Amino acid sequence: MQNETRKILESVQNGSISVDEALVRLKTQPFDDLGYAKVDFHREVRQGVPEVIYGAGKTPEQIVGIMGDMRKNGQNQILITRLSREAADVVLKSHPITYHEQAEIGYYGSIPAPDGIGTVVVATGGTSDIPVAQEAALTAEFFGNRVVRLFDVGVAGLHRLLAYREEIMSASVIIAIAGMEGALASVIGGLVDCPVIAVPTSVGYGASFGGLSALLSMLNSCASGVSVVNIDNGFGAGYLANRINHMEAKK
Amino acid sequence: MQNETRKILESVQNGSISVDEALVRLKTQPFDDLGYAKVDFHREVRQGVPEVIYGAGKTPEQIVGIMGDMRKNGQNQILITRLSREAADVVLKSHPITYHEQAEIGYYGSIPAPDGIGTVVVATGGTSDIPVAQEAALTAEFFGNRVVRLFDVGVAGLHRLLAYREEIMSASVIIAIAGMEGALASVIGGLVDCPVIAVPTSVGYGASFGGLSALLSMLNSCASGVSVVNIDNGFGAGYLANRINHMEAKK
Amino acid sequence: MQNETRKILESVQNGSISVDEALVRLKTQPFDDLGYAKVDFHREVRQGVPEVIYGAGKTPEQIVGIMGDMRKNGQNQILITRLSREAADVVLKSHPITYHEQAEIGYYGSIPAPDGIGTVVVATGGTSDIPVAQEAALTAEFFGNRVVRLFDVGVAGLHRLLAYREEIMSASVIIAIAGMEGALASVIGGLVDCPVIAVPTSVGYGASFGGLSALLSMLNSCASGVSVVNIDNGFGAGYLANRINHMEAKK
Amino acid sequence: MQNETRKILESVQNGSISVDEALVRLKTQPFDDLGYAKVDFHREVRQGVPEVIYGAGKTPEQIVGIMGDMRKNGQNQILITRLSREAADVVLKSHPITYHEQAEIGYYGSIPAPDGIGTVVVATGGTSDIPVAQEAALTAEFFGNRVVRLFDVGVAGLHRLLAYREEIMSASVIIAIAGMEGALASVIGGLVDCPVIAVPTSVGYGASFGGLSALLSMLNSCASGVSVVNIDNGFGAGYLANRINHMEAKK
Amino acid sequence: MQNETRKILESVQNGSISVDEALVRLKTQPFDDLGYAKVDFHREVRQGVPEVIYGAGKTPEQIVGIMGDMRKNGQNQILITRLSREAADVVLKSHPITYHEQAEIGYYGSIPAPDGIGTVVVATGGTSDIPVAQEAALTAEFFGNRVVRLFDVGVAGLHRLLAYREEIMSASVIIAIAGMEGALASVIGGLVDCPVIAVPTSVGYGASFGGLSALLSMLNSCASGVSVVNIDNGFGAGYLANRINHMEAKK
Amino acid sequence: MQNETRKILESVQNGSISVDEALVRLKTQPFDDLGYAKVDFHREVRQGVPEVIYGAGKTPEQIVGIMGDMRKNGQNQILITRLSREAADVVLKSHPITYHEQAEIGYYGSIPAPDGIGTVVVATGGTSDIPVAQEAALTAEFFGNRVVRLFDVGVAGLHRLLAYREEIMSASVIIAIAGMEGALASVIGGLVDCPVIAVPTSVGYGASFGGLSALLSMLNSCASGVSVVNIDNGFGAGYLANRINHMEAKK
Amino acid sequence: MQNETRKILESVQNGSISVDEALVRLKTQPFDDLGYAKVDFHREVRQGVPEVIYGAGKTPEQIVGIMGDMRKNGQNQILITRLSREAADVVLKSHPITYHEQAEIGYYGSIPAPDGIGTVVVATGGTSDIPVAQEAALTAEFFGNRVVRLFDVGVAGLHRLLAYREEIMSASVIIAIAGMEGALASVIGGLVDCPVIAVPTSVGYGASFGGLSALLSMLNSCASGVSVVNIDNGFGAGYLANRINHMEAKK
Amino acid sequence: MQNETRKILESVQNGSISVDEALVRLKTQPFDDLGYAKVDFHREVRQGVPEVIYGAGKTPEQIVGIMGDMRKNGQNQILITRLSREAADVVLKSHPITYHEQAEIGYYGSIPAPDGIGTVVVATGGTSDIPVAQEAALTAEFFGNRVVRLFDVGVAGLHRLLAYREEIMSASVIIAIAGMEGALASVIGGLVDCPVIAVPTSVGYGASFGGLSALLSMLNSCASGVSVVNIDNGFGAGYLANRINHMEAKK
Repeated sequence: MQNETRKILESVQNGSISVDEALVRLKTQPFDDLGYAKVDFHREVRQGVPEVIYGAGKTPEQIVGIMGDMRKNGQNQILITRLSREAADVVLKSHPITYHEQAEIGYYGSIPAPDGIGTVVVATGGTSDIPVAQEAALTAEFFGNRVVRLFDVGVAGLHRLLAYREEIMSASVIIAIAGMEGALASVIGGLVDCPVIAVPTSVGYGASFGGLSALLSMLNSCASGVSVVNIDNGFGAGYLANRINHMEAKK
Repeated sequence: MQNETRKILESVQNGSISVDEALVRLKTQPFDDLGYAKVDFHREVRQGVPEVIYGAGKTPEQIVGIMGDMRKNGQNQILITRLSREAADVVLKSHPITYHEQAEIGYYGSIPAPDGIGTVVVATGGTSDIPVAQEAALTAEFFGNRVVRLFDVGVAGLHRLLAYREEIMSASVIIAIAGMEGALASVIGGLVDCPVIAVPTSVGYGASFGGLSALLSMLNSCASGVSVVNIDNGFGAGYLANRINHMEAKK
Repeated sequence: MQNETRKILESVQNGSISVDEALVRLKTQPFDDLGYAKVDFHREVRQGVPEVIYGAGKTPEQIVGIMGDMRKNGQNQILITRLSREAADVVLKSHPITYHEQAEIGYYGSIPAPDGIGTVVVATGGTSDIPVAQEAALTAEFFGNRVVRLFDVGVAGLHRLLAYREEIMSASVIIAIAGMEGALASVIGGLVDCPVIAVPTSVGYGASFGGLSALLSMLNSCASGVSVVNIDNGFGAGYLANRINHMEAKK
Repeated sequence: MQNETRKILESVQNGSISVDEALVRLKTQPFDDLGYAKVDFHREVRQGVPEVIYGAGKTPEQIVGIMGDMRKNGQNQILITRLSREAADVVLKSHPITYHEQAEIGYYGSIPAPDGIGTVVVATGGTSDIPVAQEAALTAEFFGNRVVRLFDVGVAGLHRLLAYREEIMSASVIIAIAGMEGALASVIGGLVDCPVIAVPTSVGYGASFGGLSALLSMLNSCASGVSVVNIDNGFGAGYLANRINHMEAKK
Repeated sequence: MQNETRKILESVQNGSISVDEALVRLKTQPFDDLGYAKVDFHREVRQGVPEVIYGAGKTPEQIVGIMGDMRKNGQNQILITRLSREAADVVLKSHPITYHEQAEIGYYGSIPAPDGIGTVVVATGGTSDIPVAQEAALTAEFFGNRVVRLFDVGVAGLHRLLAYREEIMSASVIIAIAGMEGALASVIGGLVDCPVIAVPTSVGYGASFGGLSALLSMLNSCASGVSVVNIDNGFGAGYLANRINHMEAKK
Repeated sequence: MQNETRKILESVQNGSISVDEALVRLKTQPFDDLGYAKVDFHREVRQGVPEVIYGAGKTPEQIVGIMGDMRKNGQNQILITRLSREAADVVLKSHPITYHEQAEIGYYGSIPAPDGIGTVVVATGGTSDIPVAQEAALTAEFFGNRVVRLFDVGVAGLHRLLAYREEIMSASVIIAIAGMEGALASVIGGLVDCPVIAVPTSVGYGASFGGLSALLSMLNSCASGVSVVNIDNGFGAGYLANRINHMEAKK
Repeated sequence: MQNETRKILESVQNGSISVDEALVRLKTQPFDDLGYAKVDFHREVRQGVPEVIYGAGKTPEQIVGIMGDMRKNGQNQILITRLSREAADVVLKSHPITYHEQAEIGYYGSIPAPDGIGTVVVATGGTSDIPVAQEAALTAEFFGNRVVRLFDVGVAGLHRLLAYREEIMSASVIIAIAGMEGALASVIGGLVDCPVIAVPTSVGYGASFGGLSALLSMLNSCASGVSVVNIDNGFGAGYLANRINHMEAKK
Repeated sequence: MQNETRKILESVQNGSISVDEALVRLKTQPFDDLGYAKVDFHREVRQGVPEVIYGAGKTPEQIVGIMGDMRKNGQNQILITRLSREAADVVLKSHPITYHEQAEIGYYGSIPAPDGIGTVVVATGGTSDIPVAQEAALTAEFFGNRVVRLFDVGVAGLHRLLAYREEIMSASVIIAIAGMEGALASVIGGLVDCPVIAVPTSVGYGASFGGLSALLSMLNSCASGVSVVNIDNGFGAGYLANRINHMEAKK
């Protein structure tokens, strides 16, 4: 950021641009204004990955518009989350996306081969948690991570989880996804030495209160090294797992 | 109940008591009215165990009065729960009770030797859950049960729990006591084939919301065979464990 | 568990199996991995009853697959809970199940004759609680218990409950099911000396908040000997009632 | 109200007062402004009973000031609720009040003999609910009602309540006070044909959440004819019982 | 109740009935058992009004069955609440009921002329509260009360309420129905000297949380003489209003 | 108000009207009673703007009726909020309204040109918040305010917001609309010196709990000068913005 | 802001400062870093009023330090809120502040004479709300506003509020402060045409849940033109009232 | 784990140990049982760092005992969190710990020099959040991380945060700590490309509900890459930051 500012100042100093021109440049908007959306082209520079489209609450037409703007600006890999089957069908008329119905994810471009750094384990307590898990797994894969899926390894049958001890022990990051009482995160958290991202799901009924039970359980985990994202937020977990798995450049 | 009614009716039939006398007997109160309390002497008949005094919210003087009434009526074993140190000191001036400070339990009479039927395992997730566990254990012992205490075997160090697999496997009833995320109940519930009574505790902070987190977690246990009592309700768990452990006479 | 380990160790000692073979056996997975589910064949050994399929959140195809795997492995009695009419119709094309619509329960195999041990009383506060009650009753029957149904005996007309005092008094376990204010559990809890399993239901409106009112009420029961399962969790209550009713082998 | 307006208008018409005088009278404030309080002398006219001083949140000095103003204006019966022992001691230096510590009620003047109309029954579930019950009972007595107190008749020992069936059946209004699960209100509501005012109390712990459990329970009562006031609001119940008991003049 | 017992005892005494016959009579069930419902014929004796059918959660067939049983037993006035249009159409095939769609109320028999005792005012804050108000008003009318309806007199335009001061001032009971912030109950409560029954409604959005906002507001009313029933419980309010309005016989 | 009263009194004094006539005038109702609604014609006098019709919970027929009454009384600008497409179609058959589907707003008459006083900035965190924003913006425009729309300027890409610093800095009032974590209000509140009206929206999922998250966040804003309206209450924000923007006449 | 940037750029252009100097100036921190606090001297420029010290959660020593830094930088009017008596005593040893105990406010410098623009009315429902009201009133006065205090005008005695109709009608802004059911805000909101800032207070007990009841009530106000600040946030209301009252310069 | 098992099996195979000996070793407890605590010596092997003592809910004597056991087993660096001043004084009589009062942290041994890998930035919204921040910072330092503290950089004065853009941009992990509305996490999350651990604090009042507001806000962050730990859980954040910062060995 500062380098850019220095260049502008030096251009003013050497007279190659005017003060007014500099003023404009200093406030240039690194985004496109579509009215209903300000598409953020600066995010890739700022955060290493391009902006992702959160599909819920947007009309299919708005999604089509945003994608068009992104593609026009040279973005050739686009992820859309929370994309319903119906919306995907509309989008497909304008943009050649691949759609994964269980995860409600669409993407333009292709999922890259894993870059060989670390492994992200995505574990679920039950079968009903799989849609959230697929959202997490696909997101992590979209950003170049190797993903191992361990579904239905909840604590009611502990030996199922312990059978995969090796996979768990060698992960760089583990995403533990569970509804109901959400105990999976604590049990995994007590076994490993890598960061654990807990994702409560809305799976359950009655006193699960739409995922609140699992959420509170995970926040109060007696195992350290566990942090939590929003209920059903598979995308957020996959995104964060990628950040953690790819952070070494910083050090 | 019906036998008693039949006797009264037969006495009316054979003229040994009058209608008015019968009316009085039919509505006789099997309790004593102290004004501030109606001491229930019928409970032993009805439920096999004498009434227990819940100390919280009663003045020490009221407790002394109720105990006096019970002793006068021949009850020679009395349990008082939620009895603070201060209240116990006042009670001790009138009645020779034994006081257990950690559990906040006092009792008149003595704890009987276990009657040889089954074993109640009382397990806690952490050290801070011990006061609730002692309330549960002492209650169960007061009613004649053998109790095994397993403290600090929470799921953050699963091997600590698994090391006691034998004790757990051979229990008649298990009381699983935990605060924070309360995962202990689910993990134990998945290992055993006996009834598990889960007791959430108010141990924790922040999003444990005074035990709500553990409570919800336990209610949503993915392991079957688990039921739940109120937060910190060690007494209730011990009382119910006794009922379950001693129920065979019924069958 | 230990016996099995001893056998493996002795086989290593006497050279009948190699170290590598022993390693494999020690970690052999007593479950089948279908990808979307890990079917737990060890549960029958561990907990006396086979794994039950929780239908909610699973696609009919997944249920069909799990059942196929179970049947292939010799399980000839399978219970499926929370099975909608629509899902049942799909399952019926592959497996000959009996479907009980009100309880949303399907089962493969047949309900056995009661084994003569104790009686489980299933009582409801009102007519609207019957679906939950049927789920509880059928579950208990599926595991071999004699069940007595007492529907619509809520506390607004106490004489209706008291008329069945005999049935209530002679039960081994009582399942008290009620929505709204859930007072049924406390009233029954005060009358009997057997364990009472309280099931709050989501019956009600307004400040019943989806069963929260009945849940809190039951957790705070002033009658001892009452424990609680999740809102609408008829299956859990029936399962636990079976455990309590059949626990004597332990003692 | 209209009569008073008519009189003012007639006085204007016949010239006995001027327009300006009439304007003043039409807007005369039937209250006294002490700065920190506007003492409402109109309430007795409007609602049949004088304003009551709610002591909580007022300094003793403010209470002394309000009482002084009331006495100066001829009010010779004053009720002060939520008056702590400490505040009462300060008030006593200026005004000769009678103080009832358990109920935290003070009053100036004397409690009148009951006026012979109906009976208000004040029933509690347990001993710990007595302070709230005394607040209700004293309030009702302060306004001239006959009160019958039935303490500790909770549903865990139903026969204690049924023993007082006669008192309950012949009441004009019943105030049912209970903490924990608050089932007393429903059970009484199902037995009687008079209005039942339910008062949830904060008695309990854990999942009673400061009275929330009893409050929800009472709001969801399956018995009709029950309405609810705020948690621990003994005064409100006593006040309303008086209104109901003395309403016949209207008809 | 006691008279009936006395008669039975006297019959035993004079030999007109046997002990066994007496036993049966003493435990005779004053209700009919339809399996899914225990129809309570004792309620009219006990509470002055016949049992009402709460339609929600019952199948139309169950309602038809209960009504048939009631009619067979001579009940010629039956009220059914929470009866959907669809259910009403089914019921109409078996029983000639009058159906009021806005209130979701059906009744067999006819609404009697008011009996001349007192007036029940039913006031609402807004137009959207009218369905609840109609449920309350029809219930009160069904039990013989004169009802005055004041709809849309919420506090945002206080003069609309004050314009009806006369109606309000001369009521025996007022039912104040409001959603959103529920201030209507407090404002009316401050104006009158009769009992006020507050009914919070689920009208509103966002932070009204399904009526919670109005419920809490009404429970915390700074005006005394106000009590509260469940959210949207028009029936309960109308039923209680009838009890209050017709209570004088007791005194 | 007082002037009108004076006039009436003077008319009584000079005999031009009778006392009875004066009484009637003093209680004249400045509203029309349609039964289901009391249309408030006094509001324009009292609050400067005519009554607005809140469409939710009203039948289209009721809306048509209220509008007819308003138009008959000379109101030529009518705003209807929360008007669904279906209801609008019904209304259109009777009244020529303009309908804005995204905002669910209909209006009779036309939106006036801005009156040149100040500017209301309506900013949203995301694209999904736009319907609420349009409700706010149209409401403000309907009352004569100039509105600037800034959509999708949430804090995840702060530069998008900062790019519009000029618009924000020169606003008279800012309406900050956001769901999820609602941080937009705090960030804007920290940048400006004009009043900020925060509108939490129900946009989000999981732990957003229908807007509760954004609501609490905005109420706890660490930036001063921010106040909050109900979740999704775009109308309320637009209405209040108008009041603030047009308040100078008072000073 | 832009002007300052232009000046820096022109200085670079004309060579009066170097690029490095410009870089430093462009990122100069308009705050002082005390380690535990970053004192914001830019706020006066940005928001027209100096930073205020929120005393809660700060040690008296930290407050002394921050004040010292402010005074050193020439700020001669400093407001400290939530300052306990004890903390004030410590602060007084270093800085000559005026302390208002009821409002828990301290200030350095003096409260200015009102600047003649508009009037802020601060109204409370009861006497117990006065501390919050004083915080609001003193804050508004500290920033130069004329304040009228109307205490104890709650809706239980509506005539007390209506008696001050004139004061209310002529206000520029009204701050409506109430606990319990918080109806005051709605009633005032329906009477006036100026912005109403509602402040819920934690006054109350039981189901007031620490101010939640009043908060929800105010958020759901059926009167438009009302917005809400945090529970007990008198400062926030006074601060916002000042902003609204002094906003005309913008237009 | 498997290697150890292999060695035991090979010893059995080659006869160097007996089957019984092997059985014992396979179930050897890698923990010490103090009765009230099971000290976990296996954790260092399993998770790379020694067990930490959570001081809350433990008596000082229990802490002394656990530390003694740890030191006896050769652990020469021990961290104790949530250690009150009073408890620390007791512990100090037995063990030479260093105590940090603001963070309520004690440690035996010394804080190591940072190991040169990455930087953990600990940022707070306000001064009141510092105790939680110190707990996080000291924990991270105890495990060998370089920590940069940025206190009081909340979003109400955004320039204070932006002034430290360089520190923020070059962090490996950022711990964002804030109470009230918790917006800091979202704003930081939108600026950086490293993992952000959000810690809600209980700082605030009223509708902050003990940290719930900040918790929900952070869980709903519109910025990706943010995860959340329990309210006030500085230790958990510091512990997780260490795991993330030191995870590269895995890859």
